[in-house]
Amino acid sequence: MQAVDGGNSIRGSSQEGVMAAVITLTTDFGQKDGYVGTMKGVILSIAPLARIVDISHDIRPQDLRQAMYILSTAVPYFPPSTVHVVVVDPGVGSARRPIAVRTGSAYYVAPDNGVLSYPLGEPDSSVVHLDCAEYWLPVVSNTFHGRDIFSPVGAHLAAGVPFHVLGTEISDAITLPLPQPERLADGSLRGQVQHADRFGNLITDIPMSWLAEGMGWRFEIAGRRIAGLSITYAAVARGELIALAGSDGLLEISIREGNAAETLPASAGTVVTAMPHAIP
Amino acid sequence: MQAVDGGNSIRGSSQEGVMAAVITLTTDFGQKDGYVGTMKGVILSIAPLARIVDISHDIRPQDLRQAMYILSTAVPYFPPSTVHVVVVDPGVGSARRPIAVRTGSAYYVAPDNGVLSYPLGEPDSSVVHLDCAEYWLPVVSNTFHGRDIFSPVGAHLAAGVPFHVLGTEISDAITLPLPQPERLADGSLRGQVQHADRFGNLITDIPMSWLAEGMGWRFEIAGRRIAGLSITYAAVARGELIALAGSDGLLEISIREGNAAETLPASAGTVVTAMPHAIP
Amino acid sequence: MQAVDGGNSIRGSSQEGVMAAVITLTTDFGQKDGYVGTMKGVILSIAPLARIVDISHDIRPQDLRQAMYILSTAVPYFPPSTVHVVVVDPGVGSARRPIAVRTGSAYYVAPDNGVLSYPLGEPDSSVVHLDCAEYWLPVVSNTFHGRDIFSPVGAHLAAGVPFHVLGTEISDAITLPLPQPERLADGSLRGQVQHADRFGNLITDIPMSWLAEGMGWRFEIAGRRIAGLSITYAAVARGELIALAGSDGLLEISIREGNAAETLPASAGTVVTAMPHAIP
Repeated sequence: MQAVDGGNSIRGSSQEGVMAAVITLTTDFGQKDGYVGTMKGVILSIAPLARIVDISHDIRPQDLRQAMYILSTAVPYFPPSTVHVVVVDPGVGSARRPIAVRTGSAYYVAPDNGVLSYPLGEPDSSVVHLDCAEYWLPVVSNTFHGRDIFSPVGAHLAAGVPFHVLGTEISDAITLPLPQPERLADGSLRGQVQHADRFGNLITDIPMSWLAEGMGWRFEIAGRRIAGLSITYAAVARGELIALAGSDGLLEISIREGNAAETLPASAGTVVTAMPHAIP
Repeated sequence: MQAVDGGNSIRGSSQEGVMAAVITLTTDFGQKDGYVGTMKGVILSIAPLARIVDISHDIRPQDLRQAMYILSTAVPYFPPSTVHVVVVDPGVGSARRPIAVRTGSAYYVAPDNGVLSYPLGEPDSSVVHLDCAEYWLPVVSNTFHGRDIFSPVGAHLAAGVPFHVLGTEISDAITLPLPQPERLADGSLRGQVQHADRFGNLITDIPMSWLAEGMGWRFEIAGRRIAGLSITYAAVARGELIALAGSDGLLEISIREGNAAETLPASAGTVVTAMPHAIP
Repeated sequence: MQAVDGGNSIRGSSQEGVMAAVITLTTDFGQKDGYVGTMKGVILSIAPLARIVDISHDIRPQDLRQAMYILSTAVPYFPPSTVHVVVVDPGVGSARRPIAVRTGSAYYVAPDNGVLSYPLGEPDSSVVHLDCAEYWLPVVSNTFHGRDIFSPVGAHLAAGVPFHVLGTEISDAITLPLPQPERLADGSLRGQVQHADRFGNLITDIPMSWLAEGMGWRFEIAGRRIAGLSITYAAVARGELIALAGSDGLLEISIREGNAAETLPASAGTVVTAMPHAIP
């Protein structure tokens, strides 16, 4: 199964490297229909020792931005050379290309629809158009490339096939505009909610590093005001709104032991503003 | 733990074969109660190197037909000698027998209630009534044979125990009638929806191979007409009904970036008709 | 990664022992946000050969009792020395301590909020306050200790780090009152529903061993009466209420091929009474 390593692969060719190969899956397939299990069958048929990890299969159908966000929070915590297979694919069966991306620390396999905008934006990334059908399943359907193209390519990468043999290098892969929080002239910050999680926590696109220390901050979201920044959920009473540093270094709006997304209400795209003031 | 291989096992007895042993799980247990995790604990206690893959745990409670359909779409993509454990078991604790089935390419462990009708219909299949309690857990409850009988038997198979020692060979395992699409006298085809997936795609039981090439086709489902066959979702505008080849070679009715099951509405059992006409 | 085993670890230091190391995860994180996948990335970065099993990620947000119950039913079925990581953590970021518990058969890693009351109640358990930051991720957030503390500590245990080096031994870990079914003066039993599962089965806290054989029993729950004890679901007609032995040796109230939790209705905390009578 393994092609000879042409020297362009990050992964070593030692048995140990192959054993530890990790493949993650991020899709909008849900878990009820067996589609994800089928992809895992394909992967284990090609790379029997691969470790498969589900990141999420509950991406909202065809929501590329949610997939991008969730993937970006998980990726930094995986071992080097992990292969991330991402299948959110409204254009399946059309002329959209399947691609793979290699960065300094990971591989990605996905449709060319912008869902890999974050890794594509890394300075050392390279991209191939997956046009070598010998790394796909022998029969390719028009509706399930997750099974027929993306899983087998990911498995071949995990099994040691070098990146560059999977297809033709390209430089015009599609990227989507990334979140653009703003620093306004009066010193205040303006961003948006990127994601509402299961607990109703609202993760914004405003980096905590923009909230200069030595200043006090007030926040506004969905017509509600929050008086200052807190360190932990426990800093306020149950049911109270709170602004704090989320686990990925972004400003987060929550309700202690409550659901901010439902209560405000707010969701991806809701505007959030941070206004500084001198600490008296 | 491993009995000596009596020569009747498909799987080789090499270390490599044992390491790659894959066990899949298909149940109606859901994922919230810990039942599935418990089954995996049992499996790893007996076969520490088995690779466990979830096919689905969201089979509608006690819906044998949904389990049969989903399993049938996933099974062809797993490595040879994969052990498929299926627990949809309305008769748990009653006199219904636990069985295992061996085909030319896979093993199955399940209650004898018809859920294994597809593998039982394969020409080279053999069946044992699982009546050797030494391959079960020492204590067997009346309500959770997934934990007490099916998981341990599946794990023993994965660990190399030969199929025929697990029980007594039988020839009267229960089978359910399989889907019966019809070719009518006027050349039209009549079938049913087998499954509505997470996206609302309606997978029918009409094989694409029945839709003779060189003819045009019209479709009817739930009082709606579809004018022709398309190649991909992208062939129609968003929100439009479409008939196309599903990923398993069956006719599928979908709405591009919409939900056909909810919109029509339609579900398992809904009649679908295909009518040929000469291409002008 | 592995510290020298100081002799206090249950697990042998053999390669085989390390290979078979199993880590389970029980959280209230759900599966849609990628939090669980991120934890698995952390674990595989530290313990590449660990086998990770999900017990449940659908614990009701911050419901310690549900987590305790579900964990207690699954734990007995895992291999010796399995590491159980439990993250239901309303106090994340506050002064509540992270702890690890070792019993005669397993390890546990969790916040010190009572969720480990069952293992803490075992006679041979020991507890450490996880205060050795070298076994955590280098940067610790205030909101996601599942990723930053509990997963890395669990992975280090699975990789062979001895229990006692992870922190300082303590004896004041928090425990919650355990279920207290009662034997009343008139011989009847009074308990509560502990858990309603996906099928609507109501698992109580009354041990079957309390229902003396040789007596008949009547049951009352939510104003409904059940005439006797049955052996299996199949003993009654579809849709009928039934009292039987659940799979963990506790009295269970169910509706055959129906949903007792919704029909009665009943849920965790609902009172159930068992009244003995002489068999005529």
